[in-house]
Amino acid sequence: MKAFAMIKIGEVDWIEKDAPTPGPYDAIVKPLAVAPCTSDIHTAFEGAIGERDKMILGHEAVGEVVEVGKEVKDFKPGDRVVVPAITPDWRSKEVQRGFPMHSNGMLAGWKFSNFKDGVFAELFHVNDADMNLAYLPEEVSLEEAVMITDMMTTGFHGAELADIGLGYSVAVIGIGPVGLMAVAGAKLRGAGKLFAVGSRPACVEAAKFYGATNIINYKEGPIDEQILELTGGEGVDVVIIAGANVDILKTAVKIVKPGGTVSNVNYYGEGDVIPIPRLDWGSGMAHKKIIGGLTPGGRVRMERLIDLVMAKRIDLSKLVTHTFDGFDNIKDALLLMKDKPKDLIKPVVII
Amino acid sequence: MKAFAMIKIGEVDWIEKDAPTPGPYDAIVKPLAVAPCTSDIHTAFEGAIGERDKMILGHEAVGEVVEVGKEVKDFKPGDRVVVPAITPDWRSKEVQRGFPMHSNGMLAGWKFSNFKDGVFAELFHVNDADMNLAYLPEEVSLEEAVMITDMMTTGFHGAELADIGLGYSVAVIGIGPVGLMAVAGAKLRGAGKLFAVGSRPACVEAAKFYGATNIINYKEGPIDEQILELTGGEGVDVVIIAGANVDILKTAVKIVKPGGTVSNVNYYGEGDVIPIPRLDWGSGMAHKKIIGGLTPGGRVRMERLIDLVMAKRIDLSKLVTHTFDGFDNIKDALLLMKDKPKDLIKPVVII
Amino acid sequence: MKAFAMIKIGEVDWIEKDAPTPGPYDAIVKPLAVAPCTSDIHTAFEGAIGERDKMILGHEAVGEVVEVGKEVKDFKPGDRVVVPAITPDWRSKEVQRGFPMHSNGMLAGWKFSNFKDGVFAELFHVNDADMNLAYLPEEVSLEEAVMITDMMTTGFHGAELADIGLGYSVAVIGIGPVGLMAVAGAKLRGAGKLFAVGSRPACVEAAKFYGATNIINYKEGPIDEQILELTGGEGVDVVIIAGANVDILKTAVKIVKPGGTVSNVNYYGEGDVIPIPRLDWGSGMAHKKIIGGLTPGGRVRMERLIDLVMAKRIDLSKLVTHTFDGFDNIKDALLLMKDKPKDLIKPVVII
Amino acid sequence: MKAFAMIKIGEVDWIEKDAPTPGPYDAIVKPLAVAPCTSDIHTAFEGAIGERDKMILGHEAVGEVVEVGKEVKDFKPGDRVVVPAITPDWRSKEVQRGFPMHSNGMLAGWKFSNFKDGVFAELFHVNDADMNLAYLPEEVSLEEAVMITDMMTTGFHGAELADIGLGYSVAVIGIGPVGLMAVAGAKLRGAGKLFAVGSRPACVEAAKFYGATNIINYKEGPIDEQILELTGGEGVDVVIIAGANVDILKTAVKIVKPGGTVSNVNYYGEGDVIPIPRLDWGSGMAHKKIIGGLTPGGRVRMERLIDLVMAKRIDLSKLVTHTFDGFDNIKDALLLMKDKPKDLIKPVVII
Repeated sequence: MKAFAMIKIGEVDWIEKDAPTPGPYDAIVKPLAVAPCTSDIHTAFEGAIGERDKMILGHEAVGEVVEVGKEVKDFKPGDRVVVPAITPDWRSKEVQRGFPMHSNGMLAGWKFSNFKDGVFAELFHVNDADMNLAYLPEEVSLEEAVMITDMMTTGFHGAELADIGLGYSVAVIGIGPVGLMAVAGAKLRGAGKLFAVGSRPACVEAAKFYGATNIINYKEGPIDEQILELTGGEGVDVVIIAGANVDILKTAVKIVKPGGTVSNVNYYGEGDVIPIPRLDWGSGMAHKKIIGGLTPGGRVRMERLIDLVMAKRIDLSKLVTHTFDGFDNIKDALLLMKDKPKDLIKPVVII
Repeated sequence: MKAFAMIKIGEVDWIEKDAPTPGPYDAIVKPLAVAPCTSDIHTAFEGAIGERDKMILGHEAVGEVVEVGKEVKDFKPGDRVVVPAITPDWRSKEVQRGFPMHSNGMLAGWKFSNFKDGVFAELFHVNDADMNLAYLPEEVSLEEAVMITDMMTTGFHGAELADIGLGYSVAVIGIGPVGLMAVAGAKLRGAGKLFAVGSRPACVEAAKFYGATNIINYKEGPIDEQILELTGGEGVDVVIIAGANVDILKTAVKIVKPGGTVSNVNYYGEGDVIPIPRLDWGSGMAHKKIIGGLTPGGRVRMERLIDLVMAKRIDLSKLVTHTFDGFDNIKDALLLMKDKPKDLIKPVVII
Repeated sequence: MKAFAMIKIGEVDWIEKDAPTPGPYDAIVKPLAVAPCTSDIHTAFEGAIGERDKMILGHEAVGEVVEVGKEVKDFKPGDRVVVPAITPDWRSKEVQRGFPMHSNGMLAGWKFSNFKDGVFAELFHVNDADMNLAYLPEEVSLEEAVMITDMMTTGFHGAELADIGLGYSVAVIGIGPVGLMAVAGAKLRGAGKLFAVGSRPACVEAAKFYGATNIINYKEGPIDEQILELTGGEGVDVVIIAGANVDILKTAVKIVKPGGTVSNVNYYGEGDVIPIPRLDWGSGMAHKKIIGGLTPGGRVRMERLIDLVMAKRIDLSKLVTHTFDGFDNIKDALLLMKDKPKDLIKPVVII
Repeated sequence: MKAFAMIKIGEVDWIEKDAPTPGPYDAIVKPLAVAPCTSDIHTAFEGAIGERDKMILGHEAVGEVVEVGKEVKDFKPGDRVVVPAITPDWRSKEVQRGFPMHSNGMLAGWKFSNFKDGVFAELFHVNDADMNLAYLPEEVSLEEAVMITDMMTTGFHGAELADIGLGYSVAVIGIGPVGLMAVAGAKLRGAGKLFAVGSRPACVEAAKFYGATNIINYKEGPIDEQILELTGGEGVDVVIIAGANVDILKTAVKIVKPGGTVSNVNYYGEGDVIPIPRLDWGSGMAHKKIIGGLTPGGRVRMERLIDLVMAKRIDLSKLVTHTFDGFDNIKDALLLMKDKPKDLIKPVVII
């Protein structure tokens, strides 16, 4: 079959590979829509997860089941499915401890385009289909559905980790697609004042659409100063980091109240350490919680997010700024993600 | 001063009473808008909290500060304020245990028209002004603001107690004003499927406005059967009870999934016991949590809810179906609440 | 093989049955020690879970692995293992929702002597061995180890559900073996004052051993009156119910503080409803949480409990008042459980 | 009155000062026993909290009430009381947000020997006596009681912040008196394997007494390597930091499992930043929560800890290695804390 792969660090190309076959609990899926992710760029061009040899890229997909293992009970060829970027091993100690995304190893619930071939292929393999796939309802468009698999679930996880209560003040730092979903997720957890930190016009407009009450443009002054001024020096209850480099933690800890939470869904690609500012952290005594984590995946997670889309709690279409038609456009879509034109939030390839 | 009071159980009337005076931490407030509550009806006409002697009714008000005690720091005469129905004693053991609404006794954070005179008067007394009042921003109308003090905070507390996660399925039983706010609160906590149980057309329309995805009319069959059918027999993650008599707990426990929560913000006025159905509760083993509680009150709570209104997360005006102009209309507004005409959700008196 | 079974409701006897065979993920275990449980009595003699046809009884066992399916990775014949009474289907939606004990149905994580043959046999079958078995360290005696599988995990779950904080006051109602483990579990969660309600001398002595600071004998007056008097009328932070009939909830709700928790690990065998006392529950407003649930099971749970035994946090031997030697004594041990002589806490059969 | 004070950074001495007078809600207390704290040393000799002018030192005391303000209801002259090191302003927004220790400012619940005079004086002032004092029962010795006020509550808070579940594996780094109380607190939350990191023989012996199952001596190799080896490479569920400099966070994050918690009760006196190791933190994705905080204080907290001592859940006398008799020995006791002889854990001065 044909697929789009990382040949080695710095090189991507079309390849031919054998089609995958399912184990007894697995499924083989034909993609109907896929989307490239910034992490595909980090993986392929920056070597963020190390060297790979002709690994098929991509982990955001919706598709049609074409084959299932003999133990699969709930899905059959022809079913249209949402495929989460994170597909845990449900039989693992970490699941019993409550962390499926780390099943059998830290971050190891992330398999596509990491430990195994991704979804930029004519066919791809899904482990434990009954536990990791969800039905795609007809009412949800392919563009929207493919946004559920990673962007929505990751950004929403930022909001979940932040323990937002009704009427809490929230700052979301970074308003790329994950940050925008953190904004939307914070709104859906009950955020009151919602500061979105970013500057690109397309993202600013989308941030307002998704619930930001104030936009903080770092070009107009230090983020911390702006937010402290707007909150009468008190800071915010919650900060969600969805972008930037390791030094952003200094800002986040500074602007969060004692007893508040800094939640992180940003993947830090560089830096030996992520620095907590000592004095702003109360010299270790301020109850400013710091927590970051990979999104949950799996079937129930997808079903819950699909329910939110069906209930019209969110309109995901606003994320998709570029749509391509046809499998052969995967390369162009990926390179668009690499080039990040001004008006880009997220591209989708309909197959 | 003039006030509207419960003379004794079954009798309400205008009375003359001395104006209140503030202690060192207290404030005297002149109401700008008030609203009668169903519990005023229960109190005055059904004796729900026992006999009272010329107790001024009412606990939903926004107003203007006219006098403050000498230790009050944050408020001064002329300030426009939101007054929570629940005004805890912040210096109490229960606050240290995390339950201000039960400060110095079960439910004893509820003072207005319960342990002391209420707000249907030319002036009323607020204990611990710095801790229990919140500034009323100009942008919020009086009608909306008075809905914050009890309806919004109580209904939202139903959603809080229910531990709703993103995409959870929720059933709200009872869609009077508190139930409608439970619907809105559930939406703001991230509910996916949201079943609202009720039948009055004005309430049904409002329930859809506030986020219900399905309306369950008990006149069309048993609630449990309808909801179990709509959920493929699985039931819902969360039930919020905002109306009905004690037997409703049987329905609630039946339709909630193992591991789910039944949250209650309904005041049960009658019945020796509230029955948990044994088998549906897994004979004690189903992890179906049952929790009910009086709303939090106090300043920070009000500020957070005001922030939600300011951020346009909710439009409270939809609750207010009847507006009266002038202090003298308090009686008519209360009696309207007693008669419950078909198109009534909530009356407000602008003073 | 030989096994001891429930022939039908009211009749138990030795039977011959084919030995079980493992599926690919399963194990066949030969018991080294077993213990009868009160629920075996309810099942066999009172029909608590309905009619059964020659179902092998017993769900408390430690044993030696004799055969494993081809996909089992962590266990092999000869391994000595602790077998939890609850062996969930880890591939289920309920696990993804956080409730493995209800995997594929309410209470359905409980399989032995419920949905499938139990452990009172020469050999028994364990589903998903890698996820449900735990190694039995040499340092732990067979008597102690078999107490981990149900009594310890169930009683400790009562303490877990109760959300005990450091120094909280706790009442444990019922001090049979599960109640005693609730006492020990409450101590290990940080209970301060710990009232144990019971009267049998052997149990009273054991309750003190496990951490009770006060014994409440219901023969000396109503439980609620005694506990309210001893707490200056305030009641306790937490109640754990580990015995008694449905009416006990009235007492439990009465003696718990507003904001407190009533936790239940008692299986209620009779009664249409379990009554919550309306007024003591604050008419629905007192934040007195009520939660009951089947113990978690599975491998990680067992490993954690084994670690507690290894760390000498608890001495389980005090639970075992009667030890039998030899498989053939299973019947006598079970009947002892039925007769409940005065000095009995728990019998164990070493095989 | 006579008092022992910090004259300026680097200089301590006896001074004469006017005796304090109570506000309406306050009390004046005569110390019966006091203890110096390492933070007194940091304050006086290292300037950890900045310059001070003749500020009386000390924040660990039990005493006798000698005078109360007119609004104090629960205490009267002659009452023996436990005085928490942290005495919050209960009327504050931070209390309403759940963080009394940060009332009216980050860490501002800590008043003694920080914002106001401490307890090393013939008399000292306690704000809000009814909310901040607790009765000292006769059964508790003065030596033990003074250990409750800071060491026990602080070390136990380390265990609380760590979210320990039954049977969790825990590492406590630093086994000075706070670390020892973290060990004891972890045991009382249900820790299984409990690694205590330290080397001084007196502390090692005490750590075993308080529940450590393994002692890790950093002189015998890197802490992380030792703990990872002892846990089969898995690490621990929870780390509590109770000593060391900012770099210790690198070790803590390395040895905690994905999904685990690093809890901090160590006051970091130096360093611009506290570094999180990027890769061990899963590049931001590992769900390794980091939380540190000042102990709660106030009356209910003290009462709960006293209840634990009364219930014999802990023997605090093991902490007190040196006892002085007489007020005049406060200086010697403080200097002993500065010199830290080999056999010192904690000195107490009985007055």
